[in-house]
Amino acid sequence: MIEVYSWPTPNGHKVHIMLEECGLPYRAHAVDIGAGDQFSAEFLAISPNNKIPALVDPDGPDGRPMSLFESGAILLYLAGKTGKLLPADTRGKYETLQWLMFQMGGVGPMLGQAHHFRIYAPQKIDYAVERYTNEAKRLYGVMDRQIARHRYIAGNEYTIADIAVFPWLRSWKNQGIDWNDYPHLKGWFDEIAARPAVQRGVEVLADRRKPQMDDKAREALFGAKQYARR
Amino acid sequence: MIEVYSWPTPNGHKVHIMLEECGLPYRAHAVDIGAGDQFSAEFLAISPNNKIPALVDPDGPDGRPMSLFESGAILLYLAGKTGKLLPADTRGKYETLQWLMFQMGGVGPMLGQAHHFRIYAPQKIDYAVERYTNEAKRLYGVMDRQIARHRYIAGNEYTIADIAVFPWLRSWKNQGIDWNDYPHLKGWFDEIAARPAVQRGVEVLADRRKPQMDDKAREALFGAKQYARR
Repeated sequence: MIEVYSWPTPNGHKVHIMLEECGLPYRAHAVDIGAGDQFSAEFLAISPNNKIPALVDPDGPDGRPMSLFESGAILLYLAGKTGKLLPADTRGKYETLQWLMFQMGGVGPMLGQAHHFRIYAPQKIDYAVERYTNEAKRLYGVMDRQIARHRYIAGNEYTIADIAVFPWLRSWKNQGIDWNDYPHLKGWFDEIAARPAVQRGVEVLADRRKPQMDDKAREALFGAKQYARR
Repeated sequence: MIEVYSWPTPNGHKVHIMLEECGLPYRAHAVDIGAGDQFSAEFLAISPNNKIPALVDPDGPDGRPMSLFESGAILLYLAGKTGKLLPADTRGKYETLQWLMFQMGGVGPMLGQAHHFRIYAPQKIDYAVERYTNEAKRLYGVMDRQIARHRYIAGNEYTIADIAVFPWLRSWKNQGIDWNDYPHLKGWFDEIAARPAVQRGVEVLADRRKPQMDDKAREALFGAKQYARR
């Protein structure tokens, strides 16, 4: 059975949703990133970047176990394993890859910075709040224009690009977004949110997340002081 | 001939280096992101995220022209087109993909934020400088440990993961990095820098970059005010 080392964050949800969409049996192991579990030697062995999610597939491509980190790579691996959610034709495959990369390089990191400076940072820094709120709005605008012309993020097929983007947009309130500004994208969002596999995926480990952030969690998540210098 | 719409930044260099490594004929068109060229309608048509690089291959997978944006997707496309720089075996392919995603989701965006707050932002914000300098050091540490055990970023083969990471590390000074802290990674860096194709790649469009940043450039690059709201 596939073992997933994860947490109920957007990057974790991507993999949970993908596993549900593909109908693959899996077991989710909580890596409490607020408690610093991501810095344990056991986790480091499968995730050298100390981040969730990571996956171990006992039935790897050559019959040996395969371990992988980075949500975008895991989505591609599971798509390759099952033949699902990535177009088989070469053009469609690369069109999907470019929007997956858009999520990995833009939507994820920049909305993550918006969350940090709007919600989690111990001080309010207007310049950074404005910088990342503007970027969030710009990214939503790019996606809204894309959805105005196509049914899904990468084109006319539901793909791993949708699965990668969706969990990040669930936190639209924390990004300063008004859905009225992005009507096309909102229609897409509601459609994805209604999929049974998506609804199951976002519930995985959801009961483990603590509602409040304390100093210890803030240091584990954002401090990284003890890990930055070697 | 492949047409590249680009600028001499790390994400641009990735594609220039890849084209040089593959020996593909191409033409580089300058998109001056300091002058706001990335917001033109012509560029938007091939790069809906308003970012360089973008590529048009007149000889696409089905004989029709193929246009692509996002440097990570372009690297994968060129690797697929030429059969170069991405391992052919399934395990090696996904191991390379996970490190490419590590660059796309971590090294690129976070070192980019380090550049912004350490060098380009109009005000000095200690919290943000420390946040992104710590993250830069953490990322260099992850890569140093990887190179301590493998010759290249994704394993024992030179791949698109090396090509994706290298241009970002050329700006190590702007990231607060002391190479003495990362001896394994420094050896790798020097080896990659010495490759003739890499040396040609980083010179592409290099004469177009202006040494100084003025207010107009700052607004085009970081303002995004007129583009954030629709």
